[in-house]
Amino acid sequence: MSHISTPSANAIRILAVDAVQKANSGHPGAPMGMADIAKVLWQDFYSHNPNNYQWPNRDRFVLSNGHGSMLQYALLHLSGYDLSIEDLKHFRQLHSKTPGHPEYGYTEGVETTTGPLGAGIANAVGMAIAEKTLAAQFNRPDFDIVDHFTYCFLGDGCLMEGISHEACSLAGTLGLGKLVAFWDDNGISIDGHVEGWFTDDTPKRFASYGWHVITGVDGHDETQIKEAIENARKITDKPTLICCKTVIGFGSPNKSGSHDCHGSPLGNDEITAVRKQLNWPHAPFEVPDDVYQQWDARKAGEKREQQWQTLFANYAQSFPELANEFKRRVIEQTMPQGFDLKADEYIRQCQQQMENVATRKASQKAIEFFAGLLPEIVGGSADLAGSNLTLWPDAKGIQEDASGNYVYYGVREFGMSAIMNGIAVHGGFIPFGATFLMFMEYARNAVRMAALMKAKSIFVYTHDSIGQGEDGPTHQPIEQLATLRLTPNLTTWRPCDSTETAEAWRQALVKNGPSALVFTRQGTSAVARNTAQIADIAKGGYVLLEPNSKPDLILIASGSEVQLALDAAAILNQQGKQVRVVSMPSTNQFDTQSKEYKAEVLPSEVPKLAVEAAHQDFWWKYVGHNGDVLGLNTFGESAPGAVLLEHFGFTTDNLVNKALSLLT
Amino acid sequence: MSHISTPSANAIRILAVDAVQKANSGHPGAPMGMADIAKVLWQDFYSHNPNNYQWPNRDRFVLSNGHGSMLQYALLHLSGYDLSIEDLKHFRQLHSKTPGHPEYGYTEGVETTTGPLGAGIANAVGMAIAEKTLAAQFNRPDFDIVDHFTYCFLGDGCLMEGISHEACSLAGTLGLGKLVAFWDDNGISIDGHVEGWFTDDTPKRFASYGWHVITGVDGHDETQIKEAIENARKITDKPTLICCKTVIGFGSPNKSGSHDCHGSPLGNDEITAVRKQLNWPHAPFEVPDDVYQQWDARKAGEKREQQWQTLFANYAQSFPELANEFKRRVIEQTMPQGFDLKADEYIRQCQQQMENVATRKASQKAIEFFAGLLPEIVGGSADLAGSNLTLWPDAKGIQEDASGNYVYYGVREFGMSAIMNGIAVHGGFIPFGATFLMFMEYARNAVRMAALMKAKSIFVYTHDSIGQGEDGPTHQPIEQLATLRLTPNLTTWRPCDSTETAEAWRQALVKNGPSALVFTRQGTSAVARNTAQIADIAKGGYVLLEPNSKPDLILIASGSEVQLALDAAAILNQQGKQVRVVSMPSTNQFDTQSKEYKAEVLPSEVPKLAVEAAHQDFWWKYVGHNGDVLGLNTFGESAPGAVLLEHFGFTTDNLVNKALSLLT
Repeated sequence: MSHISTPSANAIRILAVDAVQKANSGHPGAPMGMADIAKVLWQDFYSHNPNNYQWPNRDRFVLSNGHGSMLQYALLHLSGYDLSIEDLKHFRQLHSKTPGHPEYGYTEGVETTTGPLGAGIANAVGMAIAEKTLAAQFNRPDFDIVDHFTYCFLGDGCLMEGISHEACSLAGTLGLGKLVAFWDDNGISIDGHVEGWFTDDTPKRFASYGWHVITGVDGHDETQIKEAIENARKITDKPTLICCKTVIGFGSPNKSGSHDCHGSPLGNDEITAVRKQLNWPHAPFEVPDDVYQQWDARKAGEKREQQWQTLFANYAQSFPELANEFKRRVIEQTMPQGFDLKADEYIRQCQQQMENVATRKASQKAIEFFAGLLPEIVGGSADLAGSNLTLWPDAKGIQEDASGNYVYYGVREFGMSAIMNGIAVHGGFIPFGATFLMFMEYARNAVRMAALMKAKSIFVYTHDSIGQGEDGPTHQPIEQLATLRLTPNLTTWRPCDSTETAEAWRQALVKNGPSALVFTRQGTSAVARNTAQIADIAKGGYVLLEPNSKPDLILIASGSEVQLALDAAAILNQQGKQVRVVSMPSTNQFDTQSKEYKAEVLPSEVPKLAVEAAHQDFWWKYVGHNGDVLGLNTFGESAPGAVLLEHFGFTTDNLVNKALSLLT
Repeated sequence: MSHISTPSANAIRILAVDAVQKANSGHPGAPMGMADIAKVLWQDFYSHNPNNYQWPNRDRFVLSNGHGSMLQYALLHLSGYDLSIEDLKHFRQLHSKTPGHPEYGYTEGVETTTGPLGAGIANAVGMAIAEKTLAAQFNRPDFDIVDHFTYCFLGDGCLMEGISHEACSLAGTLGLGKLVAFWDDNGISIDGHVEGWFTDDTPKRFASYGWHVITGVDGHDETQIKEAIENARKITDKPTLICCKTVIGFGSPNKSGSHDCHGSPLGNDEITAVRKQLNWPHAPFEVPDDVYQQWDARKAGEKREQQWQTLFANYAQSFPELANEFKRRVIEQTMPQGFDLKADEYIRQCQQQMENVATRKASQKAIEFFAGLLPEIVGGSADLAGSNLTLWPDAKGIQEDASGNYVYYGVREFGMSAIMNGIAVHGGFIPFGATFLMFMEYARNAVRMAALMKAKSIFVYTHDSIGQGEDGPTHQPIEQLATLRLTPNLTTWRPCDSTETAEAWRQALVKNGPSALVFTRQGTSAVARNTAQIADIAKGGYVLLEPNSKPDLILIASGSEVQLALDAAAILNQQGKQVRVVSMPSTNQFDTQSKEYKAEVLPSEVPKLAVEAAHQDFWWKYVGHNGDVLGLNTFGESAPGAVLLEHFGFTTDNLVNKALSLLT
């Protein structure tokens, strides 16, 4: 090792090593390897204010190789964030601020949750999109109130993952000049030296995406790192990848350069050797004052934010409306005045119009309405705009015009969804993005990450059942609705007509967290409702049809099957049965209602029959063993949608018969 | 258009156009654009026998842009496969041989199911791996009994998808010289001209993977296409990408070159214009005899296979054991003689040894045992070999030795899983591949495609619950087990100890279809069983502990929670309660048992309490409304596994209390 390791960088290394050892769990290798890069970036370039982690114009930092979490915790602690040495001592312990992977909402200064590889760089692309678009919408000559970089660290694992292709390809197309990524090129992944499974020419790959690529940087040479960052910042029309050759576990005499230090504590003997090698005589979790002083970013950060606050105050004088809108969208993150009343009125209109349309079409109208109220909406689709119906008259691609409100994501479902999460946690926008419900699967982990972070990403999924028809079983969801509904923190809606669709959109827009909106390809029938029923849609499940007397049976349905339930109930009620119909657009929302309300809608003593063109097993929760489910437990087929619905038994006759066998 | 369009190619175009029109649904653009490439490949190079679509040494053809299915159906029909003109007339109709996307098992000559974009090229990489490894294992000097190409068509959508990165990167590392891919570079995707969202320099990208890239081929010039294929076949140490400039909807005077012809019927007027433009006077679904003759590959195919049969007969004389093994593995696809007895014996041993180990460790031992019996096993992991415990003493990477039995997949879960499917449908191998259960999500659609195809892919998932501990909620599965169990055709196992693990592995190996094997990170306790109980494991659910008299309560558990159920039952039974414990390693397998058996194990009148460290809602199916579930409906936390299990209520006390409240 000919490199000079500075005490500042070594503080990161030692804190990482000690915390991992104390937890007896974690990843010392990456923090040790990237410490010098982190030191240069954070001490010489990173624009932030540790006293206010929510300062809107701060730079963003994403650790895409999130297993190296101690790197980020060390940076936050040393820079002066609200993360104490005690917090570091509780690394990976229950309810600590230092969980195993960096978690958004747990730790001030953690900008996004990372760990699942490759997703972090996609989040970073989203943040860079948000910065560029917000700047184009709000900046005015001499008032660059939005003007920050997004930095991302990533490892070989991130580069092997397909999501890095999707996100980085789009970042190149969009020319995101303020995105700077650092590749930790240490040649090691968990299985060992990567040449057996990872031989990409990564610089060439990123050049093929249109990135500015800086190669051959010694990741332990501060001068080279500094020069590379300066060059990266100069190129404003392309994202930059800085390829840093590093030694994993740098500073560990016996384990550096090997996967032995990737994901396990070094052990006390080796830690002693590290201390010696790095000339670090201090006790565990002890950092000398002069090192703390080198790191302390509070004063500079305060000053930086003050300058920005002054700029913003002047901006507010020159552009009061814009400034108010900036405050609302970015700082307070609230709905505009009158939003709820206008939404109520729109939903009433939908009810009055009684249009028989596919819910994807109803969704398009809802998007048009809500986008008119909420300029923070930034829509998109994974190359299915004409099928998902996600475009509206005022949609404008950010590709053509950076101040736009629509992203043509290309055929990149996973990239899109993780980019949406990055846009959402950046602030200033409510992103929605669409694909077929089936291809939610391609993006599945990003949906889950939105839920884990409670990021307000709105996932729009059309072609929601075998009703989509001829494309066949590769495109027909069966078990996907259950997957969405079982995801904690995610609210899934499958509305039955325009009115429910409008309410679902409103609920998604006001919720502090992600939603999935699931729509049909095929037409649906508008359903009559009184005022109380319209209000009850928001509860996720409500009585849509009540028989003349106490019900003998309850039909529960969602989406395109609600009309089927109503038709069956009409026949049964004519036959003198007493059948209630419950529309259940959102089981998640219904589950959060009071015990009393739920018991009122679904009284335990009345047998229940659920009907949905999706996997039947989801519904046993609601119908119990004395109920029944008309659903599916096989894959679909290729045929016209109406043929399939009949083939699989979604007919009035069949539903009536099932009901009758429960009634007798 | 200066190109000469041959009647052979035009036959494809017209059949596609007519079939899509008749179905009033489908994608004419891609078949029309790729018809010339397909014509040259299939007439001049493609080595197959339409009379025997299972001839082991046939070339493989994968239409990764599967929405262009009519291209493949036209090729199969014209070449003489068992796919009549009547079948083409029933394109996209119920139970036809011509579903909306090509489906493996529906149509002779369709080698894999495609449609979800990018997965097809990953399947093709799997087929090329299978070919190379099978050749290395079986070929002998002068006896290249395995020697075929894998050809793959792909579009812009496939190239945008992340899975194409994962699969093609690995294909480059592995130097799969017999893989030839054709990029349909038509500049159009569903949202329109791709330059707004797809600006990759694709040749450079593939060069960065180490591919042989042939650029600038006019996809409507037969000479250029032919030359390119010849060059591709000459390069034996690298896969080849042939970049073909094409016009989408070639032959349609008013819609070619636009996304209007991508995914909708052209309409009768335009079809008339196409007929004129292509000089095709024949009625719909009428192909002139001379064109049929140009296409007919039956005689040549028969001859080709005969030559191979002769070669194989001579091979069998020189290498009788190898030939028998080839027949068993590749042609008959059966288990070796004595397999079941040996497996029984191994499982008995596991029971006797009563080892308390993590089930991932038990899995590793099972792998070692079964791989000793079944040389067709080809294992792997997405860079987690040491965590998933997928290596065994005789594992040998195919990177170092092409005749090996292990793939170091790198951090590529989706690529791995789709590659496994390609290996499985190629024949000759039973692939398994591992990752953490959480990262099943990255690969989710490939798991579903295995299920749809009934491909014998074995998905190994470790770190199966919050019990994995410190890595935190990004790595702790909650809803993932439900997703797997609700996937039709997939059998999911979550065994509780070494004995159940061994049986789960056996069941996965003998099943005609995919399985998911789900294992703990943490240790488990071996459970005592009598001979009948050992035999009952295969039923997926069975009585593990029976009280002295008729049960008042049944505890149902899987995996690491079985011991918890046994502990709680012991306490309850001491208190004079009558509590049965049912171990349920596979709900899917249990669901297929007879009504009588299921009623015996879970009699309807006895209250039931399920316990599993996973989403609770899955279990209402088995416990009903008068039962209860000890499960989870939130995300996990970062802390040591034992701390988390207690924190979330997975304690004997808590389970006993829940049981008591059901008993009173």
